[in-house]
Amino acid sequence: MNEMGANRYGKQRVRVVKVTRGPEQHDLRDLTVGIALEGAFADAHVTGSNALVVTTDTMKNTAYALASDHLVGAVEDYGVALARHFLDGPQVDRAVVDIMEHRWTRVSGADGPAPDAFQRMGDLTRTASITATRLGVTVEAGVEDLTLMKTSRSAFTGFPRDRYTTLREVDDRIMATKVRATWRYGPGPVDWDVVHAAALSTLLEVFVDHHSLSLQQSIWLIADEMLRRVPELDEVRMVLPNLHHWAVDLRPFGMEDRGELFVATTEPHGQIEATVRRSPG
Amino acid sequence: MNEMGANRYGKQRVRVVKVTRGPEQHDLRDLTVGIALEGAFADAHVTGSNALVVTTDTMKNTAYALASDHLVGAVEDYGVALARHFLDGPQVDRAVVDIMEHRWTRVSGADGPAPDAFQRMGDLTRTASITATRLGVTVEAGVEDLTLMKTSRSAFTGFPRDRYTTLREVDDRIMATKVRATWRYGPGPVDWDVVHAAALSTLLEVFVDHHSLSLQQSIWLIADEMLRRVPELDEVRMVLPNLHHWAVDLRPFGMEDRGELFVATTEPHGQIEATVRRSPG
Amino acid sequence: MNEMGANRYGKQRVRVVKVTRGPEQHDLRDLTVGIALEGAFADAHVTGSNALVVTTDTMKNTAYALASDHLVGAVEDYGVALARHFLDGPQVDRAVVDIMEHRWTRVSGADGPAPDAFQRMGDLTRTASITATRLGVTVEAGVEDLTLMKTSRSAFTGFPRDRYTTLREVDDRIMATKVRATWRYGPGPVDWDVVHAAALSTLLEVFVDHHSLSLQQSIWLIADEMLRRVPELDEVRMVLPNLHHWAVDLRPFGMEDRGELFVATTEPHGQIEATVRRSPG
Amino acid sequence: MNEMGANRYGKQRVRVVKVTRGPEQHDLRDLTVGIALEGAFADAHVTGSNALVVTTDTMKNTAYALASDHLVGAVEDYGVALARHFLDGPQVDRAVVDIMEHRWTRVSGADGPAPDAFQRMGDLTRTASITATRLGVTVEAGVEDLTLMKTSRSAFTGFPRDRYTTLREVDDRIMATKVRATWRYGPGPVDWDVVHAAALSTLLEVFVDHHSLSLQQSIWLIADEMLRRVPELDEVRMVLPNLHHWAVDLRPFGMEDRGELFVATTEPHGQIEATVRRSPG
Repeated sequence: MNEMGANRYGKQRVRVVKVTRGPEQHDLRDLTVGIALEGAFADAHVTGSNALVVTTDTMKNTAYALASDHLVGAVEDYGVALARHFLDGPQVDRAVVDIMEHRWTRVSGADGPAPDAFQRMGDLTRTASITATRLGVTVEAGVEDLTLMKTSRSAFTGFPRDRYTTLREVDDRIMATKVRATWRYGPGPVDWDVVHAAALSTLLEVFVDHHSLSLQQSIWLIADEMLRRVPELDEVRMVLPNLHHWAVDLRPFGMEDRGELFVATTEPHGQIEATVRRSPG
Repeated sequence: MNEMGANRYGKQRVRVVKVTRGPEQHDLRDLTVGIALEGAFADAHVTGSNALVVTTDTMKNTAYALASDHLVGAVEDYGVALARHFLDGPQVDRAVVDIMEHRWTRVSGADGPAPDAFQRMGDLTRTASITATRLGVTVEAGVEDLTLMKTSRSAFTGFPRDRYTTLREVDDRIMATKVRATWRYGPGPVDWDVVHAAALSTLLEVFVDHHSLSLQQSIWLIADEMLRRVPELDEVRMVLPNLHHWAVDLRPFGMEDRGELFVATTEPHGQIEATVRRSPG
Repeated sequence: MNEMGANRYGKQRVRVVKVTRGPEQHDLRDLTVGIALEGAFADAHVTGSNALVVTTDTMKNTAYALASDHLVGAVEDYGVALARHFLDGPQVDRAVVDIMEHRWTRVSGADGPAPDAFQRMGDLTRTASITATRLGVTVEAGVEDLTLMKTSRSAFTGFPRDRYTTLREVDDRIMATKVRATWRYGPGPVDWDVVHAAALSTLLEVFVDHHSLSLQQSIWLIADEMLRRVPELDEVRMVLPNLHHWAVDLRPFGMEDRGELFVATTEPHGQIEATVRRSPG
Repeated sequence: MNEMGANRYGKQRVRVVKVTRGPEQHDLRDLTVGIALEGAFADAHVTGSNALVVTTDTMKNTAYALASDHLVGAVEDYGVALARHFLDGPQVDRAVVDIMEHRWTRVSGADGPAPDAFQRMGDLTRTASITATRLGVTVEAGVEDLTLMKTSRSAFTGFPRDRYTTLREVDDRIMATKVRATWRYGPGPVDWDVVHAAALSTLLEVFVDHHSLSLQQSIWLIADEMLRRVPELDEVRMVLPNLHHWAVDLRPFGMEDRGELFVATTEPHGQIEATVRRSPG
């Protein structure tokens, strides 16, 4: 005999755009929202009864409806309202709301910044993930699609060698990565936008200022400093691909090689993932 | 004070193509391989010492080197050899090898199937995931990118309604999905290719023959039958997006509506994920 | 003073799915349609008058409406009907309809091929492009996303060398490409499906059977033979990326190198484009 | 008998990254380069002789080699040098170099902007296309991936209606588009970076300040003003998808509808393409 194991369902890629028309200017919010529910859904699978199945179409509608009143400040407030809403259903044990916020900036016309015209920024995506259960709500936030490069102060040496090792040790390499960073907030009150800005600026500042011995060490230095400076964070997770930039050798062309030219690659790539957290002690 | 939590690292998207030139014909294998290691790597982060860090470049080289001798039969055999290899390092506790196998078929010329010319199939990708630890090796396999549609025998009714519910109940809808299915093999010996074929053909057969009351129920019916027919499987996980096909209403155009035309959409989409397993009892 | 130059507008990526429910089985068609109009639209730009601007929303609606009656046989018949429809507007000089047909195959259940369940094939996309003007209708057809590989009988030698040339001459290389082929039909009647099949099978057969001295020569040999065998074609255009597969050298690992292993790459890639046509004489 | 028609070949997606290490700080350039040649290549197709075929691998090498000396200022200078280089081959009649420049900005650390750390911007890609023939060199430049939105001052009314028209007239709609704009420089000397900035700022300023009656009119107003303000430009081409944002109706949920919420869509989309040029008279 077989039985149901873990299961979840929901709606993904709900594109919520909100234009608030103030007296002086419009404000623009642009989100991609995902919703997933867990709970007493085993029967829905085994018997085919939909009596408890909140439809994913309703989830989508709810994402829009709650945006009307709740998407007025930080995206985390909206996510918390949305996740809690689904807990109203007694069959739901856990509601997870994942949000990507796409950034737009005001474009300038002849008279300065426009009240009603925007350009999409592509420098990073702000993320939030809200998990609501009967025990409470957990909020995580972060960034993704943040592509960074260090053109010096990055080395990679002292690694073990076996018969398959051909990589040379390098004191000075290009380090390029596309950051996905997520941090978990502790239980106290958080000023979402302020703390997000503090966490992100710390990430960037340590990225700039540290001398990297490896992507592993970079994660530690960055996350450790984020936890030191931003007390609201309990834990930082980072996923850093190593987007290799291979040096082009110009000497076969009879040219002096000044070490300036590189081939940017995306495949294959290294991938470093780690969590740094406050020690329980 | 802070400390390291979970961490892993490795190489992703290693593109391994192997052409075996037999006396009668060539054989072609085409894989995308990912490798991830866990183990005694906390120090590498905290101190920056790379003394134990098997480089991801070496992982890539090893994927090619082991393909020479081990990529001769089922892809699972190659994955097991590769995962076990990395356990040779005492600092490694867990090695995970994820493989996508891209399928090619022999093209026919004037004299029948060619010995040396191939066409890439795009109907599905075969997957395997091998996890090696000191305790043993676990093998999972499956498929992804398998896009299926039922044009009848799919309903969705009897769901709860709240103020945000606008979806109509339908006895007969289009069901379209892009299947990601993964199954875990039990501890006994497995004839990888034979069992994979049996699991996949069961999946397809039940997909065809069942009357679906929901994607949730479809997962149950498919996975339950896979476990019944294929004793080597311990557990089946499925991730099924619901790729909505919305009916086009021709009546505003003064036309009779025969219910034949649909808009295929990819965003937003439902997402149903579930695991079905053998009961322990 | 400035003036309008060339201009066109329309709707792209209209996803038309049609399910025809016959007494024995369903038939499934799945298209992505693009529509572009040219004509007396300069004023619409300069004055902002929309009096002559058939809306792109109406184009989309028309694509669905005409699918009802006209998408019953070859996709070219539907495209011709759709393109001609837009010429009804006297302001339209030229209507171009571009169609991609996504292929699905019937899945088999316990009792054989299903009447109502389908699997999407990903081996190639059939294309058609119909241009209607006051002078008549031109039909082009073809394929794209057809990925092919020759594992022998492909060489590349005898090319010129300059100071920047480092490529070695090779008598036996992997040739991999993703074919985009388009052919133009002459003015006579064409049995669209039959001729498309003949053109495609010739393409594949020559790909298999020829010994390639370069992708350029492959295009010539394939297109020349297509024109010879299929009299309905006036011209064949091919766009062939050269998807390089670089040999992996195992000797640094102390292994014998049997020339079996390759890295598949997509970036950078060669790109060869050429048209072969019937000589006017 | 058949004959060769138009043909071209080259290398695409060459990823050229250059790091110039100055005494105070590093500078970073990041390009994707495509090269295509036309000329006396018919024989290469028909006979398979590669005697005149500059290999695409050599093109790639040349792109790196010439970056060493020529990628020091505007990307157009590099492109002109590269295109002219290929004309050294007497068999080449036309060399086209297409460049995308990916923008990076300096990241700030504790002590201000870093000398050696960069963040990739994603707000737009600068493009250049250089065509060199025996008669001279033509330079085009532009932008792509520039996503813009107007949340007011955009209408669409007064269009013709037929039986398939269901679109409502709207005085106030969201206009969202992803701009691809290309302009051709006249024969005189051009200060590439200065003129590019002027062209782009004019584009943005008119986008902000105009009241749009249609995307067609927006193109005219923008391009017309670009030609008026920037005398170096001879012609402006724009390709504007209409990325529809459909209003969400909250009234079915028993809510007041303030017209604030929208579904962002990408498929299907309108597509408006037009060229505006200086009148010859």
